[in-house]
Amino acid sequence: VDGRLVCVQDFATAAAARLPLMALDYYRSGATSQVTLIENRRAMRRWYILPRLLRDVSTRSLGTSVFGHSLQLPIAIAPTALQKMAHPLGECASASAAGRHGTVFTLSTIATSSIEEVARSAPNAIKFFQLYIYRDRSLTEKLVERAKAAGFKAIVLTVDAATFGIRRADIRNNFNLPPHLKLANFESTSDEGTLGDRGTGNSGINEYVKDNFDAGITWQDLKWLINVTTLPVVVKGILTSADASLALQAGVAAVWVSNHGARQVDGVPPTIEALPHVVAEVNGRCPVFVDGGFTDGSDIFKALALGASLVFIGRPVLWGLACAGEQGVYQVIEILKRELDNVMTNSGCRTLSDITRDMVVRRDQFSKL
Amino acid sequence: VDGRLVCVQDFATAAAARLPLMALDYYRSGATSQVTLIENRRAMRRWYILPRLLRDVSTRSLGTSVFGHSLQLPIAIAPTALQKMAHPLGECASASAAGRHGTVFTLSTIATSSIEEVARSAPNAIKFFQLYIYRDRSLTEKLVERAKAAGFKAIVLTVDAATFGIRRADIRNNFNLPPHLKLANFESTSDEGTLGDRGTGNSGINEYVKDNFDAGITWQDLKWLINVTTLPVVVKGILTSADASLALQAGVAAVWVSNHGARQVDGVPPTIEALPHVVAEVNGRCPVFVDGGFTDGSDIFKALALGASLVFIGRPVLWGLACAGEQGVYQVIEILKRELDNVMTNSGCRTLSDITRDMVVRRDQFSKL
Amino acid sequence: VDGRLVCVQDFATAAAARLPLMALDYYRSGATSQVTLIENRRAMRRWYILPRLLRDVSTRSLGTSVFGHSLQLPIAIAPTALQKMAHPLGECASASAAGRHGTVFTLSTIATSSIEEVARSAPNAIKFFQLYIYRDRSLTEKLVERAKAAGFKAIVLTVDAATFGIRRADIRNNFNLPPHLKLANFESTSDEGTLGDRGTGNSGINEYVKDNFDAGITWQDLKWLINVTTLPVVVKGILTSADASLALQAGVAAVWVSNHGARQVDGVPPTIEALPHVVAEVNGRCPVFVDGGFTDGSDIFKALALGASLVFIGRPVLWGLACAGEQGVYQVIEILKRELDNVMTNSGCRTLSDITRDMVVRRDQFSKL
Amino acid sequence: VDGRLVCVQDFATAAAARLPLMALDYYRSGATSQVTLIENRRAMRRWYILPRLLRDVSTRSLGTSVFGHSLQLPIAIAPTALQKMAHPLGECASASAAGRHGTVFTLSTIATSSIEEVARSAPNAIKFFQLYIYRDRSLTEKLVERAKAAGFKAIVLTVDAATFGIRRADIRNNFNLPPHLKLANFESTSDEGTLGDRGTGNSGINEYVKDNFDAGITWQDLKWLINVTTLPVVVKGILTSADASLALQAGVAAVWVSNHGARQVDGVPPTIEALPHVVAEVNGRCPVFVDGGFTDGSDIFKALALGASLVFIGRPVLWGLACAGEQGVYQVIEILKRELDNVMTNSGCRTLSDITRDMVVRRDQFSKL
Ligand SMILES: Cc1cc2nc3c(=O)[nH]c(=O)nc-3n(C[C@H](O)[C@H](O)[C@H](O)COP(=O)(O)O)c2cc1C
Ligand SMILES: Cc1cc2nc3c(=O)[nH]c(=O)nc-3n(C[C@H](O)[C@H](O)[C@H](O)COP(=O)(O)O)c2cc1C
Ligand SMILES: Cc1cc2nc3c(=O)[nH]c(=O)nc-3n(C[C@H](O)[C@H](O)[C@H](O)COP(=O)(O)O)c2cc1C
Ligand SMILES: Cc1cc2nc3c(=O)[nH]c(=O)nc-3n(C[C@H](O)[C@H](O)[C@H](O)COP(=O)(O)O)c2cc1C
Repeated sequence: VDGRLVCVQDFATAAAARLPLMALDYYRSGATSQVTLIENRRAMRRWYILPRLLRDVSTRSLGTSVFGHSLQLPIAIAPTALQKMAHPLGECASASAAGRHGTVFTLSTIATSSIEEVARSAPNAIKFFQLYIYRDRSLTEKLVERAKAAGFKAIVLTVDAATFGIRRADIRNNFNLPPHLKLANFESTSDEGTLGDRGTGNSGINEYVKDNFDAGITWQDLKWLINVTTLPVVVKGILTSADASLALQAGVAAVWVSNHGARQVDGVPPTIEALPHVVAEVNGRCPVFVDGGFTDGSDIFKALALGASLVFIGRPVLWGLACAGEQGVYQVIEILKRELDNVMTNSGCRTLSDITRDMVVRRDQFSKL
Repeated sequence: VDGRLVCVQDFATAAAARLPLMALDYYRSGATSQVTLIENRRAMRRWYILPRLLRDVSTRSLGTSVFGHSLQLPIAIAPTALQKMAHPLGECASASAAGRHGTVFTLSTIATSSIEEVARSAPNAIKFFQLYIYRDRSLTEKLVERAKAAGFKAIVLTVDAATFGIRRADIRNNFNLPPHLKLANFESTSDEGTLGDRGTGNSGINEYVKDNFDAGITWQDLKWLINVTTLPVVVKGILTSADASLALQAGVAAVWVSNHGARQVDGVPPTIEALPHVVAEVNGRCPVFVDGGFTDGSDIFKALALGASLVFIGRPVLWGLACAGEQGVYQVIEILKRELDNVMTNSGCRTLSDITRDMVVRRDQFSKL
Repeated sequence: VDGRLVCVQDFATAAAARLPLMALDYYRSGATSQVTLIENRRAMRRWYILPRLLRDVSTRSLGTSVFGHSLQLPIAIAPTALQKMAHPLGECASASAAGRHGTVFTLSTIATSSIEEVARSAPNAIKFFQLYIYRDRSLTEKLVERAKAAGFKAIVLTVDAATFGIRRADIRNNFNLPPHLKLANFESTSDEGTLGDRGTGNSGINEYVKDNFDAGITWQDLKWLINVTTLPVVVKGILTSADASLALQAGVAAVWVSNHGARQVDGVPPTIEALPHVVAEVNGRCPVFVDGGFTDGSDIFKALALGASLVFIGRPVLWGLACAGEQGVYQVIEILKRELDNVMTNSGCRTLSDITRDMVVRRDQFSKL
Repeated sequence: VDGRLVCVQDFATAAAARLPLMALDYYRSGATSQVTLIENRRAMRRWYILPRLLRDVSTRSLGTSVFGHSLQLPIAIAPTALQKMAHPLGECASASAAGRHGTVFTLSTIATSSIEEVARSAPNAIKFFQLYIYRDRSLTEKLVERAKAAGFKAIVLTVDAATFGIRRADIRNNFNLPPHLKLANFESTSDEGTLGDRGTGNSGINEYVKDNFDAGITWQDLKWLINVTTLPVVVKGILTSADASLALQAGVAAVWVSNHGARQVDGVPPTIEALPHVVAEVNGRCPVFVDGGFTDGSDIFKALALGASLVFIGRPVLWGLACAGEQGVYQVIEILKRELDNVMTNSGCRTLSDITRDMVVRRDQFSKL
């Protein structure tokens, strides 16, 4: 990895120069006018960190645990589809990097590496499987079983994608999977395995989703899923306390605050602002995860202070992958880890539990005296 | 239509490259320093959409109705003058596109196609006639009668144009109607039909308005109009609860929140901010319409959540017309429809009535916890 | 005057191309980092105008009166020094344009045309004399007497200039009066009449002020001035209710809210924000004037709604003067007059007294429902 | 010094053109994404100055005192490391300029001039010694003793640097001290005196800090320091009222509000916003100092009004040094002094005690009426 890549933004810039436009656009786009894409980042800056000084921080630990598994740091990998467009080893490389860091890798249903390949490549990673519910419910159930069989530790049901958001660049590019790649979790000849050009002039992936995902799922389907598997079920995509409450009632193991990287409904709140609402509602009854626009150690510190247990990153992993495969992903996580550790050190936090709610405050709130 | 035109902004950009500057400037300008023009768009972004998840959205309907007429979608066409500058078929093409979409087309008094031509070209459109009250009151009454006779379904009285706002580009361009066009609702030799260069160095249309429109009209004239016709009368241009209240007292069939596309008084509120004031005042007593800066499905969703029954678009229609005539207008509406449908799908809304007030919140309000 | 100059900003741009840099910089600069210079303009945009509709505005009057004198419009000319750098006829031309418009012209103490010259050139203008109090108090008194003798109608004591603010461009330019010009109210050989290069590497005008103005004046000196003349005394430069209150106690005839065109203390409030504080304090006991950043009819409307009796313009006059002498100044005022009239027409205001406090509201206040 | 350098920003620009990139980047960088670096400046602009008029300001004094020593102005020099990268005379030149101005110079522990050299070069400066606590505690104690012996008047313990913040440019540049320079307070052959390339690809200074500073220090160590010396002990880096309170309990002589020039934790509050919190907590029990982004006289006035006793500048001194050595530093301070004096004059303040809390107000607070 190039030593000049010293922050996540550097990786983003370098990746943009390397990736074919169709892949780059697919990765970086947000929905329609991308207002939320910008908000995800900008909202971070509306929070101040209030450091505490003269506390002994000579040794620190970033370790935590989730569902009984130990993690070396609270930064984990969110599911992003089609990673082999960024690097030949795709999801296998990302998962392996997560393993080296002792953290979680989440595999997308619509990955270009299969559940079993990823399991083989990354025995040390704590692996979660991100599920989309297909119209074909038995096929869906089979995915869950395969994940469990392959040693995955949780099922993450993504609930913010009844259909895919409109990403204008993908329509312009008539986005499609390069011919040498496939949706590796499915038979390559099945409907679910094929992401071909349907001649609609639309994004190929959006057409695929419309054809295959079940837009009719409800809280009942979440309960069905929880019943169908012994794995903990996480619900991903929650933005309101109302839905967090329903998720808890359904029996989820964790709530994942996400706006899908600003790729679904343009105009939803940035996740750093939705987080406190969800945390207040959940009130300690289960862990709360978050993702969306985390590119700095300071951002991660803020989310932890606001009550998140784990902070997931999506695009930064893709940029690492595009720049240098597994080592690139490793490096991106390493950078964020160092930045978080640095913020903790200079804020008087020896462990994650030292990062308390009173250590962050909104600018407007602080600037009142 | 070029497949690369995937959003309203694309049409605006393409239209700017095609239109003669004088027409382009007339279409795009706002009053004086154009502060409200920018605010109309920017204010949209100060609202967050709060989606609800895991609701069955496998089938959806965008259908609604107005004054007893069914519409296939809540997006309609606002009156904009002089559409033949954008395309030879002008208002006839726009009306026809509205008809194909099963929605409302509003014809301006100062159109370049006549009431009767539009009626013939667009039998399927639900047609409203937008009225300016002329000094010559019997001529005014005749317009209303002709609209009724031609099958128009409502009269929209525009009340925010006692005189025309100052649009600096029009003065610079010494704006005038191209010689081959005419104000088609009037005798071409009459005062009201002639928009010639008066040698004032001012905008020709502004001089026309000063000479012909009655700047002395009051709420009494609105009552007169309501009496004079059996058609429902809509009052267009309301920005305050005070005037909404007076309109209701006068007996209007609907209130249309508008700042005339930011073309009249620079500095008035953006319509998305005036809307909640008017909705609260009206309190369900009549439908509330809105226009001003709607270019994304998310914007339209926000207005519906805030209580609008119909969202009208002005300039986007002109951009569609300039790019590809009727098909261009059709495409612009199609894009907005798809974007709205996408937001509804991913926000758990199966019908328009599922889009409730609690699904939008101002950024400042949400970012308090 | 070039017909393309359709707004004040056009005049500013054209003037910048014509003026020598030293004069341009002197005219346009604000103090130090020019934060307030920008705020003066930007703060205008934080206010919304709430128009009222369907009121008979077929005839309108912008007329008003001050100290018993009738004005044809509420827009007047603020004192700006050294106007002959912009045009050979300088203050005489500006005053004459004010006369043609039936409004007030305020002559600076440090003008390049004398009290008597201006009186001769502009018999129709309502003339105010802006006073700086010199160390030489009898010389100061003589200025007041000369103004009275020449038919000036008020003395405006500028109280925000104990010393001149730091204008960085003037220091860089080693600003000085071109040799053919002089401070016309003084003997050309006296200390007070000479603005020569003092070899300090500082702005010549700032050095002059330091040498000649009395930085020790207090509210007692204001009372002295009120006693010394039968003319109404206006106090210019008030930004706080505390000082407005003291001014009223001293017996002023009017309070002029000003930050000296953002040229004195950088960081003071924009005048549109100081205005409501002063108006509330004064509470009708005397007229309140305002200046600072008024370049649009909408801005002027806002100030009138907030309680100002007259709105003064400084730089816009200089831009008019630089572009086309008296006719340029006339044109600048004409533009603002037309813009104000247009806003009034479209906001339902027939006279200035129809412009009420409830017709403006801050964005934050309005955007709460 | 070039006469065109009329403000601190001019010096910054000129310095950027002269300094080698490695030094420039070290000097100007903030931590990670530099959000706080920008906030430090931008937050200043959210405060308005409310001047008071017609007070006798013909003579003024900027004099003040600290720990019994008289200062001619409330502007002092903050500790910045490695000043010889900017100019061969480094800290000696800066200290000497402070002496000529009758103000405080603070010498960094990691200076390129030694305690004794600075004492010799700047007998007239009031000298403070900024301390970092080393793992080697006796070496640390010796530094304190040497400072006392050399006539330094206070020990400033920097508590916001358990480790150094991540400055991305320094990593990119593989930052290191030019070979001809050394950490002059230490034996050149000792660990503490050597800032060599450790081949880590990291910033050399950050590695040095990690190896040598004690990250385990607590409030007990502050108490130890207070016991070990008879000099007043100032604690530098306080941002919260909680830590201000603990500092007072420990017995400090003054609290210094600082975010280390935005170089430690990115995302902490700008110091102008932290200041009122600390002032309220301290409540007059000891002086409060502040630094961070002060580049204008208006900024300094605001801090004084908010309760600061002294305002320290960091980077402006480096820019002065880089442009013209001692004379450059002198000039930078002179500019700020003149700007502060100008603001005081035009705000009715004859002495520092006239700069009261009611003379500043946040924009949001003021813009409410
Ligand atoms: C290119 C891309 C593909 C994604 N694919 C999926 C997916 O298959 N399943 C899913 O639940 N989320 C998916 N997401 C959303 C991510 O899990 C995550 O919520 C988001 O990327 C976090 O924001 P960030 O990219 O700003 O870190 C995708 C995001 C991106 C950018
Ligand atoms: C070029 C143009 C011409 C217009 N002509 C009329 C008109 O004749 N009558 C009318 O009531 N409104 C007219 N309007 C205002 C529109 O009906 C509508 O309020 C506005 O365009 C909505 O804002 P939008 O353009 O941002 O969608 C016009 C607007 C534009 C841009
Ligand atoms: C070039 C210039 C010279 C000025 N000279 C004077 C003056 O001699 N006396 C005075 O009271 N105000 C003076 N002012 C301040 C103006 O009277 C007025 O307060 C200010 O220009 C209003 O702001 P505006 O320029 O944005 O309209 C001057 C302003 C400028 C721009
Ligand atoms: C290049 C540089 C080196 C610094 N070195 C030190 C130091 O050695 N010790 C310390 O306490 N603070 C150090 N600081 C922080 C300054 O003392 C001060 O807090 C900061 O520079 C003030 O902000 P300003 O640069 O915006 O004026 C340093 C700052 C800079 C910019």
